[in-house]
Amino acid sequence: MDDLVALCKRRGFIFQSGEIYGGLQGLYDYGPLGVELKNNIKNAWWSSMVYENDNIEGLDSSILTNPLVLKYSGHEETFSDPMVDCKSCNQRFRADQIPKECKPEDLTEPRMFNLMFKTNVGPVDDGENFAYLRPETAQQIFTNFKNVVDSTSKSIPFGIAQVGKAFRNEITPRNFIFRVREFEQMELEYFVEPGKDEECINSWVQKRLEWWEKQGVPTESIELYEVPKDELAHYSKRTVDLMYNFPHGLEELEGIANRTDFDLGSHSKKQEELGIKSQVKNNRNSNSKLAVQNEHGDWYVPYVIEPSAGVERGFLAILNEAFVEENLDNGKTRTVLKLKPHLAPVKAAIIPLKKNNEEIVALSKSTKNLLQDLGLGRVMLENTGNIGKGYRRHDEIGTPICITVDFDSLEDNTVTIRDRDTMEQTRLKINELPNFFINKIR
Amino acid sequence: MDDLVALCKRRGFIFQSGEIYGGLQGLYDYGPLGVELKNNIKNAWWSSMVYENDNIEGLDSSILTNPLVLKYSGHEETFSDPMVDCKSCNQRFRADQIPKECKPEDLTEPRMFNLMFKTNVGPVDDGENFAYLRPETAQQIFTNFKNVVDSTSKSIPFGIAQVGKAFRNEITPRNFIFRVREFEQMELEYFVEPGKDEECINSWVQKRLEWWEKQGVPTESIELYEVPKDELAHYSKRTVDLMYNFPHGLEELEGIANRTDFDLGSHSKKQEELGIKSQVKNNRNSNSKLAVQNEHGDWYVPYVIEPSAGVERGFLAILNEAFVEENLDNGKTRTVLKLKPHLAPVKAAIIPLKKNNEEIVALSKSTKNLLQDLGLGRVMLENTGNIGKGYRRHDEIGTPICITVDFDSLEDNTVTIRDRDTMEQTRLKINELPNFFINKIR
Repeated sequence: MDDLVALCKRRGFIFQSGEIYGGLQGLYDYGPLGVELKNNIKNAWWSSMVYENDNIEGLDSSILTNPLVLKYSGHEETFSDPMVDCKSCNQRFRADQIPKECKPEDLTEPRMFNLMFKTNVGPVDDGENFAYLRPETAQQIFTNFKNVVDSTSKSIPFGIAQVGKAFRNEITPRNFIFRVREFEQMELEYFVEPGKDEECINSWVQKRLEWWEKQGVPTESIELYEVPKDELAHYSKRTVDLMYNFPHGLEELEGIANRTDFDLGSHSKKQEELGIKSQVKNNRNSNSKLAVQNEHGDWYVPYVIEPSAGVERGFLAILNEAFVEENLDNGKTRTVLKLKPHLAPVKAAIIPLKKNNEEIVALSKSTKNLLQDLGLGRVMLENTGNIGKGYRRHDEIGTPICITVDFDSLEDNTVTIRDRDTMEQTRLKINELPNFFINKIR
Repeated sequence: MDDLVALCKRRGFIFQSGEIYGGLQGLYDYGPLGVELKNNIKNAWWSSMVYENDNIEGLDSSILTNPLVLKYSGHEETFSDPMVDCKSCNQRFRADQIPKECKPEDLTEPRMFNLMFKTNVGPVDDGENFAYLRPETAQQIFTNFKNVVDSTSKSIPFGIAQVGKAFRNEITPRNFIFRVREFEQMELEYFVEPGKDEECINSWVQKRLEWWEKQGVPTESIELYEVPKDELAHYSKRTVDLMYNFPHGLEELEGIANRTDFDLGSHSKKQEELGIKSQVKNNRNSNSKLAVQNEHGDWYVPYVIEPSAGVERGFLAILNEAFVEENLDNGKTRTVLKLKPHLAPVKAAIIPLKKNNEEIVALSKSTKNLLQDLGLGRVMLENTGNIGKGYRRHDEIGTPICITVDFDSLEDNTVTIRDRDTMEQTRLKINELPNFFINKIR
C-alpha cells in the first residue's frame, strides 16, 4: 500500500484535499492522472450500462436532497454507526474500530451516530430548512422513477443508472481512498417483476464479475460473500458482496442487493392499493404513484436489483492489480502500471528525439494531433529530450505506447512504437498509426 | 422559455429535484437526455482544454473544503449578497430582487448574507469542525498548484482545468436552471508571468468565443461586457463577461477574469519574500510556497487568467439556440433541436420497419452495435414500429440521424438514412455506415 500511495502522490494521481492547510480527514483530490483514470472508469461503467443496454437509461440528480426523501428511505432512522467516547483521550471512535491503546474502562457505552451530512438551505437558519448531502445516489433514482418512465416509455424490466458523488460523515475515515467522507458511486437500479428478482440478481452478479475482469480485476481475485440474513440492510432480501483483497485486507468492492419493492413502495402515494410486500413507513407526503401496470391492468410495485460500486474502491483495486515491479535482464527493476489501455490516463506519449529540433518537434505535434483527434482520450507530447526517462515515466503511469519521432521519421514518415508491457520496439508508418492506435486502445 | 421548459420535462432532459415531495427550490435533476447533453458539453470543454493543449493539466478536487481555503481566498468575508426581510409577508429577499408587491416601509435595512453552505464534519458537532461546500471550483486549483507543478514538471505558462459541482445558497434562485443552488462549473486557471496577463486575457476571450461557436452558440449572439472597475470582484484586475441573450434576458454565460497574483499569493507561505502585488491577508496557516522561479532563480507568484463557465448556463444557451419550430410544406409544424452532432444526447436512432419481424430487429441490433462500438456516444434502438413517430421524437431530442432497417435491408444490406436538419432520406450500404457516422458526429 505504501508504494502505491507514494506513486499516487509523486506522479499526480491523488493528493490530500487542502494539504497546504494540513488537509481534512477522509477527503482527497485527484490530480492530472487521477482525474483521467477516474473518468475512464466511470465512462467504462456508463458505456457498459447505458450504451450497451437498450433498456437502461441514465440519470444525474442533485447532491442536495429533500429531507423527506431520506426520511421515507429509512436513512434518518437507520443510517448510523455505533460511536463511543474515550474519556481519557477525549476522542470519538466507531465502536468496532477502537485503537488498541484505549482502555475499556475509559470508554462510554456505544450510541448511534447518523452518518448523513446536512446543511441549511435558504436564508432562514432555524433548523427547519435544510437538505442532506445524499448518502447514496440510489434514492433519487427511485424518486424519479415515474419521470423516467413517462419520458422514455420504458416498461419492466428496465434500469436507471447513475454515477455521482455521495457523502458519509464517517467517524473514522481510513485506508487511503478506501473509506472516505466524499466519494463517487456507480449505481444501477434494475426494475423487475416480483418473482423474477432471484434470477435477476444472479445474472447481475455474473455480469458485474465480467465487467471487473475487463477493467483488469480478474474474477479469481474476487470472492463472493453472501451477506448473512441477520446482517442485511433493512431494505434487502439478499445481498452478494464482491470482496477484493485490497492492500489493507479483504473488503467490499461492490455490493449487489435485492432491494425488493421497499424503496419504490416507501416513496409511493396510495401504498395501500399496491400490494407492497415490504414493510414500509406510511407515506403522507408523496404526490406520485411509483408503480406500473401488469398485462391485466393491475398496479404493482416492481422489485429492484441494485449493483452498487464505489469509484474510488475500483480505482484502488485497478491500480493494485496493475502495479508491477519487474526485474529486468540487466539487473535493474522497473515499475509498470499494466492498466487496460482504455483505462490508461495517457493513451500514448509522443517523444521527439531532439527537443530543440524544429522539424522533429513539428512532426511530433502533428502526430499527436492525428491521434488526439480520434477522440479516444489523452495523447501527450513529451518533449523532454530524454527518451529513456520518458519510457520510465510512462511505464510508471501506465501509458500503453510511446511513439518516438527521430531523424529517419523526417525522411520516410515512420516512427518507433515502444510497447509498455513487452518493451518491444517496432517501426510503423505514420499513416498506419491511427488504425494501430484504435486497435490498441479500444 | 415556457416551451423549452415543457420540452425539457416531457422528453426527459430536466426534472425538479425531489419533485414527488414538492421539490426543493433551486435544485434540478437531469434525466436520460439531460445527463447525456450535460456530459457532452463537459467533455467538449475538457477535450478543448486538457487534450488539445499540451500545457494544460486536469484536476478533480473535493467538494467539501477546508475552511482555511475559503478564509484566505476572501470568501468568508466577501462572498455575500445583501438581504432584506419583509415584515408584512415574513419572507426574505435579495435586496436587488424584491417583488413589486412589497411595500418599501415593510422592508428592513439590507444586511449581508454569506452564500456558502457549510456542514459539520466528524463526530463532534461543536461548530468548530466544519467544511464548506465549495462555492467555486477555482480555489482548490490554487491550493494544489505546487502538487501539480511537482508531479508534472510544468513551467509557466501553463493551466489547470477543472469541471465539477459548486454550491451557492442563493437567497432567491430563479429562471429555471439559470440561477440555482447546486451547479457545475468548467474553470481553467491559466498561470502566466506578470506583465503577460493583459495579452493573455484577450487571447482567452477570443478562444472562448470560438469554443462557444463550435457548440452552436454563435459569436453574434454573445455580447462582450467589460465589467466596470467599481463592480470588479475583490481579486480581479479586469473581467470580461460573455453575455448571452437568455430567454429571460441578457445575462452572463461565462466570465473571463484576470485574478492577478491574488489567489496564489493569498494561499502562500512566506508571502513577504515573494513581491506579491495584490493586497492579501497575512497567511499564518499555509505550509506551501505557491511560487515559481524565473530564469535568474528569483521567486515570483504567477498571475492567473480564469475563463469560468457554468455548465447549466451553457446547457440553456445551447438548447435555446438549437430549439426551432419549423413550418413544413404540408402546413404542419415540427419541433427540432438542431444540436451540433457531438452534443446530441442520442447520436443515431436505429428504427426497424416492423417491430415484430425477427430478422429486421436482429439486423437493427447488429447495426446499432456496429455504431455503438465506435465509442462516439449513445446509439439507440427505437423499436416502436412507428417510423413517423420515431422521426418526430428524434427531431425533438436532436438526434442527427435516423436509420431505418426494412425488408430490402435483408436482401441488399442497405439502410435508409434520414437527416434531422434537411429531412432528406438516402440509401447507404451498412458497411459504409461507420465512416458516414464518424464524419457526421466528429
